Amino acid sequence: MNRATECLRRHQNEHLNWAIDLCRMPSISTQDEHKPDMRRAAEWTRELCARIGLEAGIHETGGHPLVYAEWCHAPGAPTYLGYGHIDVQPEGDLSLWDADPFEPVVKDGWLYCRGAADNKGQVLLYVRAAQAWLETAGKLPINLKLLIEGEEEIGSPNLAPFVAKNKELLKCDGILISDTGLFEDGWPTITTGTRGICYKEVRLSGPKHDVHSGDGGPITNPANALARIIASLHDEQGRVNIPGFYDDVLDAPADERAQLAELPFDEGKYAEEIGVPGFSGEQGWSVAELRSMRPTLDVNGIYGGYMKEGANTIIPASAGAKLSMRLVPSQRADDISRKFDNVIRSRCPKSVRYKIIDHAHAEPYMTPPGSKTLEDATRALREAFGREVAFIRCNDSLPILSMFKQELNADSILLGFASPNCNAHGPNEKLNLADLNRGAEAVARLMGYLGG
Amino acid sequence: MNRATECLRRHQNEHLNWAIDLCRMPSISTQDEHKPDMRRAAEWTRELCARIGLEAGIHETGGHPLVYAEWCHAPGAPTYLGYGHIDVQPEGDLSLWDADPFEPVVKDGWLYCRGAADNKGQVLLYVRAAQAWLETAGKLPINLKLLIEGEEEIGSPNLAPFVAKNKELLKCDGILISDTGLFEDGWPTITTGTRGICYKEVRLSGPKHDVHSGDGGPITNPANALARIIASLHDEQGRVNIPGFYDDVLDAPADERAQLAELPFDEGKYAEEIGVPGFSGEQGWSVAELRSMRPTLDVNGIYGGYMKEGANTIIPASAGAKLSMRLVPSQRADDISRKFDNVIRSRCPKSVRYKIIDHAHAEPYMTPPGSKTLEDATRALREAFGREVAFIRCNDSLPILSMFKQELNADSILLGFASPNCNAHGPNEKLNLADLNRGAEAVARLMGYLGG
Repeated sequence: MNRATECLRRHQNEHLNWAIDLCRMPSISTQDEHKPDMRRAAEWTRELCARIGLEAGIHETGGHPLVYAEWCHAPGAPTYLGYGHIDVQPEGDLSLWDADPFEPVVKDGWLYCRGAADNKGQVLLYVRAAQAWLETAGKLPINLKLLIEGEEEIGSPNLAPFVAKNKELLKCDGILISDTGLFEDGWPTITTGTRGICYKEVRLSGPKHDVHSGDGGPITNPANALARIIASLHDEQGRVNIPGFYDDVLDAPADERAQLAELPFDEGKYAEEIGVPGFSGEQGWSVAELRSMRPTLDVNGIYGGYMKEGANTIIPASAGAKLSMRLVPSQRADDISRKFDNVIRSRCPKSVRYKIIDHAHAEPYMTPPGSKTLEDATRALREAFGREVAFIRCNDSLPILSMFKQELNADSILLGFASPNCNAHGPNEKLNLADLNRGAEAVARLMGYLGG
Repeated sequence: MNRATECLRRHQNEHLNWAIDLCRMPSISTQDEHKPDMRRAAEWTRELCARIGLEAGIHETGGHPLVYAEWCHAPGAPTYLGYGHIDVQPEGDLSLWDADPFEPVVKDGWLYCRGAADNKGQVLLYVRAAQAWLETAGKLPINLKLLIEGEEEIGSPNLAPFVAKNKELLKCDGILISDTGLFEDGWPTITTGTRGICYKEVRLSGPKHDVHSGDGGPITNPANALARIIASLHDEQGRVNIPGFYDDVLDAPADERAQLAELPFDEGKYAEEIGVPGFSGEQGWSVAELRSMRPTLDVNGIYGGYMKEGANTIIPASAGAKLSMRLVPSQRADDISRKFDNVIRSRCPKSVRYKIIDHAHAEPYMTPPGSKTLEDATRALREAFGREVAFIRCNDSLPILSMFKQELNADSILLGFASPNCNAHGPNEKLNLADLNRGAEAVARLMGYLGG
């Protein structure tokens, strides 16, 4: 293991050049004009994998191709699947960038480029670690499979079908993903869970046309009725007031809460940052807990009647709201969806009509605590960074995790190395090279521990 | 009196021609290009008044001129002020009209033209009745003052200042207005009250920018908070839940409720007409009562966050609602405004900021029951139409009534003759000539009764 990590150090400049070469390709998956760049990036990645000694191929999908590579010559050793992506977000407003978004710049220990952090620099960690083992030991301590897609930034439309069709190929004991971030620069971090989502739109219809508000009194105003329904969706304690909503919530374990409480988080500074005079939410949970460990119900948009400047005296014909619920392990989106619909049905007055539109479902995910894989990852990160690991949850959704669990019956470990200030999706995206190199060492060590 | 009403019958054709001549002028007060037409209509009206024997003049205002005419040669007799307007609404969508909106057409007993019902045909009733009395008796039974403005359709911005400056000129014992409608064609009707309005906009602000809904939990969502506040504005019984809101409500007298209950009103047909599956509202009041005798609180518009197609996962930076309260006698708009503001202040969570915008205030009005003027009007209408009078309330606001009350300390009687199907403000506006002629007789009779 020490030889492998030393080898990684020797190759640091070469590996930086890999990242630079890959970052230079404008592989923007959402823009048709970049289809050739997507293919070029896939080809480049396949070649790199093959060059260091993996068996690698391009797989066509209905959209952008994906790269699959493997080294499976360790009979009896466990098999792990590394997942990542080589597509990137569009560059956005060019005037906000200090340099060409696709001309990588190394400055003060950071690599600046669109895609550096999300996810090109990180996906290459698995290739770097594999190279180090193959070069120093002639073999890997585990069977390694790499699944590198080109559609993550457009919602991975072809990933689930590919996985479903290739279950045997992708069969594994666990999944490693480095597409998340550090709690702080230099602080090794494992993301232990993500929230799911159930996104609904509720529309209430009253009169067939807007009615003069002078006729108000007997007419059920759809906007008032909608407000009443939305208000009913929380109780006085800030909990979501949908029968059965919390039935399947796995309360975060006491040690996870204790660990989160020890992580520095300045509520006052956060309030100032987003510009709010205070916080609210379910009683009995801290701000940090509320935004990651607890489920939510938020209006994302609300509309109805006269919405322009000034006044217009009407009872609106209709009003609607877009409502999303963030789900936590182990709520299920379809179950919550059904419970939500039931509540709307029962709370909508008979004097208006309602319609519910489903926008998005994604399952929450939690890495099972106490597994050997998690212990190995914790140890590898601690050793590579020289610091205790922070365990956090991701507030947002990563639907592929529950998909992997369902299709491959394998759990994922999220060990990401992007800086909290990496500006993924924004201008001047950047990647801290010291943390990236520590990440490479962590992955190499992890392979060692997983194998033995 | 009989001679006067016979005289009216003899003049019916001539009087129809007055209406046709006045209707032909496109006196649209809101459009600058029609300023000359406004002046022409005022001049024409002044000349007509002078021709039949009134002293008449044009008065300049900050906007369109108004016509004031009087005959005050009945010492000892009471003085009444007739109010009306000669400006009209724009014609709107020409393709919806069967003919030129400003080329009057007489067909099947109706006069079709923009302004026929609202208010040109009706304002001329006072001139017609005065002519009949002057021609047959050489004098009027009362002192008559006519105030005919050209800005009613734009909210009478210069009327209140004119009245305030001319209190002595306009001094009177009562005010007669024919700018409302009949309960049904051929059914004489007095409108005994109008609702006031207090129109507010409430905006709640949370984060300084929209925030990713993945951060939801501790952040007070302005749209959820707004819904909660709006929901709190009604109680479970459908009453407005603002402390003191009903303090000054004069409950409609039992006889008025009994009379209203006897008027034909088909709730099912009304529901079908406006397209609602049912009604709601304050318990203990009928649909007809709710829409005229009771105060309301309705959302006219609501907005916030992502309002377009599809889904966007944000916690909105802000959300707002336009809310109007219809007021009934003797609520006061400023008092209700203050009570509303207090409620918003006390119910807005500390974790968001609120702002209240005032859009409109107008006082409710009720003709005092039991006055001699009201009795005389009832008798005159009953005799002219040969049918018992319907007493109804107007759902909408007529702010000039409380202004007249305040400035002149005089009460108004609303005896209007427009058909419920007259399409005022819409295409193919029309006036039933039989009802108009009965109206002329009613006004002539009323002058007689008022005079003694």
